[in-house]
Amino acid sequence: MSTQRINASIITIGDELLIGQTIDTNSAFIAQELNKIGVWVKRRVAVGDIYDDIWRSLDEESKHADIIIITGGLGPTADDITKPLLSKYFHGNLVISQPVLEHIKYLFEKVYHRPVAGMLERNLKQAEVPDVCIVLHNERGTAPGMWFEKPLESEMISSSDTQNEKKTVDKVFISMPGVPHEMQGLMINEVIPRLQQKFRLPVIIHRTAFTFGMGESMIAERIKDFESALPSHVKLAYLPGYGLVKLRLTTVSDDKEKAEEEMNRLFMKLKELVNDVLVSDRDEGLEITIGKILKARGKTVSTAESCTGGFIAHLITTVPGSSLWFKGSVVSYANEAKEKVLDVRHETLANDGAVSKETVTEMVDGVLQLMNTDFALATSGIMGPDGGSDEKPVGTVWIAAGTRKKKEFLKLNLRFDRKRNIEQTALSALNFLRKFILDNG
Amino acid sequence: MSTQRINASIITIGDELLIGQTIDTNSAFIAQELNKIGVWVKRRVAVGDIYDDIWRSLDEESKHADIIIITGGLGPTADDITKPLLSKYFHGNLVISQPVLEHIKYLFEKVYHRPVAGMLERNLKQAEVPDVCIVLHNERGTAPGMWFEKPLESEMISSSDTQNEKKTVDKVFISMPGVPHEMQGLMINEVIPRLQQKFRLPVIIHRTAFTFGMGESMIAERIKDFESALPSHVKLAYLPGYGLVKLRLTTVSDDKEKAEEEMNRLFMKLKELVNDVLVSDRDEGLEITIGKILKARGKTVSTAESCTGGFIAHLITTVPGSSLWFKGSVVSYANEAKEKVLDVRHETLANDGAVSKETVTEMVDGVLQLMNTDFALATSGIMGPDGGSDEKPVGTVWIAAGTRKKKEFLKLNLRFDRKRNIEQTALSALNFLRKFILDNG
Repeated sequence: MSTQRINASIITIGDELLIGQTIDTNSAFIAQELNKIGVWVKRRVAVGDIYDDIWRSLDEESKHADIIIITGGLGPTADDITKPLLSKYFHGNLVISQPVLEHIKYLFEKVYHRPVAGMLERNLKQAEVPDVCIVLHNERGTAPGMWFEKPLESEMISSSDTQNEKKTVDKVFISMPGVPHEMQGLMINEVIPRLQQKFRLPVIIHRTAFTFGMGESMIAERIKDFESALPSHVKLAYLPGYGLVKLRLTTVSDDKEKAEEEMNRLFMKLKELVNDVLVSDRDEGLEITIGKILKARGKTVSTAESCTGGFIAHLITTVPGSSLWFKGSVVSYANEAKEKVLDVRHETLANDGAVSKETVTEMVDGVLQLMNTDFALATSGIMGPDGGSDEKPVGTVWIAAGTRKKKEFLKLNLRFDRKRNIEQTALSALNFLRKFILDNG
Repeated sequence: MSTQRINASIITIGDELLIGQTIDTNSAFIAQELNKIGVWVKRRVAVGDIYDDIWRSLDEESKHADIIIITGGLGPTADDITKPLLSKYFHGNLVISQPVLEHIKYLFEKVYHRPVAGMLERNLKQAEVPDVCIVLHNERGTAPGMWFEKPLESEMISSSDTQNEKKTVDKVFISMPGVPHEMQGLMINEVIPRLQQKFRLPVIIHRTAFTFGMGESMIAERIKDFESALPSHVKLAYLPGYGLVKLRLTTVSDDKEKAEEEMNRLFMKLKELVNDVLVSDRDEGLEITIGKILKARGKTVSTAESCTGGFIAHLITTVPGSSLWFKGSVVSYANEAKEKVLDVRHETLANDGAVSKETVTEMVDGVLQLMNTDFALATSGIMGPDGGSDEKPVGTVWIAAGTRKKKEFLKLNLRFDRKRNIEQTALSALNFLRKFILDNG
């Protein structure tokens, strides 16, 4: 018998999500983790701290999903109403949980280094849980997770000639605090293992090809025969981003081995079709791909950043172990810094300007000398909203990648807002560096 | 008569939102813009590229909202099914829109610099729109926005002694492409002005106090009398983040002047209560606050970053006009760079280590000298997952803020993952710099 598809809904609670003050990163994390174990996220809903709206969303989502995951609304302050609501929804009463209380005391004393005697009533109140739930241990914070099961009698009544058993379907409701770090710990340590135990889950396989420099329509045109020949159980999605397009193949199956074999074959074909713009066959950032190439070759890189203001160095240093191949960066935001730190000549800045091929050339030479690396990357541009001229409007960018012996250049004409101009420049520069290293490494 | 509250629901479409591959930033932007003009966002829903799920969400959301905003599902590739669905939902037919077709041709020729003759059928198909919608001009891309109105007869039938008119309530459905940059242009240029014309909207006022360094429970305890004395039409929300808590007061009113007066009075009181931990009375980043202080005093700053890897410089340079008060940064990721670029002594690194009070002191001196600024900020720490020792475990961080004459220090012991350790260090360092400048400026 085929495994049944298990559907989940994610409900996030908090007014801050509805006035746009907070970007919801929790849902993405939860969806990723569920997806890995073969749970299909069907919907995500965000509602405010309003009793009726939360109640309604529990009713609605449980109609179509087997697993309902709720985050937010569990903090120690007065705008949190979720816990009493859940207690009522599942016909329970709030009672003190001794293990939770001990844990809160432990955190106060040993982690926050505050006297237990100084604990506030509202901290103690966090040890209250509905007596109808399984308490999930939150090792990273004071608000526990909660696991509820709601047995619903199946609508199919067994006919008299079959066995006289009633099939009950349990819906699972899981509530977690909204602080990302705490929620993440709960998901990994408590929720995922319990879901795997509770449900018989299929295998979901994704394969993502990361391309850079070709538009969505052009790619679609090129792979249209491949796409129309895909078997119906394999889905292809286009995920466009800043200059990049991710192509994702997805399948759901009960037979892991067979599905992987099929997906490998299809993915190989897809990669061949986009080979000239393919950056990576994993869903990973350019900085990770570059790190792998440099590590394999035992080479190092440094950056000299004007308009990107350290963003490239930041992307690189989010990669664990990047100290093996990245030595540092000079963010030469002022011209003075370009001259004094990177030895860009005063005449170059005066004659060609800070945003010029000549300046980024000297920036590369300067940082290669200073950081003593094999490769260097330099950026200089006008990110806006001010600072543009007729000759060099906002969005003009010069990028250089090079070694002591050789340099290559890329000029961009961007037309976005400041933040996106910075991001787009950083990604284009990293992809340019990647190609330079591959060609000259 | 009091203005009626106008509710909105946001529906975002795309499988990538449900497997966690993409973080939904569109909803936050849309919610912010709606909120500014007095539209209340009641719910946000994300669904996959599945016909029935999209249809169901249109039905459900329109039951409770006056305005339904839909993004995503309009791209040129085969996984987009929204446009035909909307056409059917509103009983229309897809027809070519000449203005949209002209615009697509214009973009190809003048912006993408590609021959019009090379346009693909799928690009031309983007000029198709349902004949029952108002087309919204998307100046930033090829997929147009669409505005549908669905007149619903009011359930209140007018009694015979009143005027014999039937009140009809129009629900508005607006569909926009999911590319953030394009959606943002459409919201600002088309959607917001049309909504303001269509609905009579109340005033929503928020006031946000940005605090740093005190926990949510402690703040709640301190302001509990204030909170319980708030009038029922004013709401207080706690928005905790990395080391910070934002306190937000919200009111909805028809009388802007009266409401602003009341909110100013309440907000003044709130600020007094948290004065010692107050960073800003606006919902803005620390880097913006620091920029204002430095600009007002005509002073400059530079950074020397090891463990934050350029993230502080990045935060600073996202602020337009930051070149007035920020000169640059040295990201001295390798010890070699600390010595060679920042003149940190070899003995200091050998005896005290890279993560030490001594090293950050010399980093401050080095970058002050190099960048010639009034203030400097330095960070050095172990962000993980590797690199820790018994003496200096992962999460150990030293921060120094200083001038040539004086330095102050902050030591952190963090216990998060790499990415959050970097973010937390950067925010703590910026707040430490802010206080140092205020005390020593």
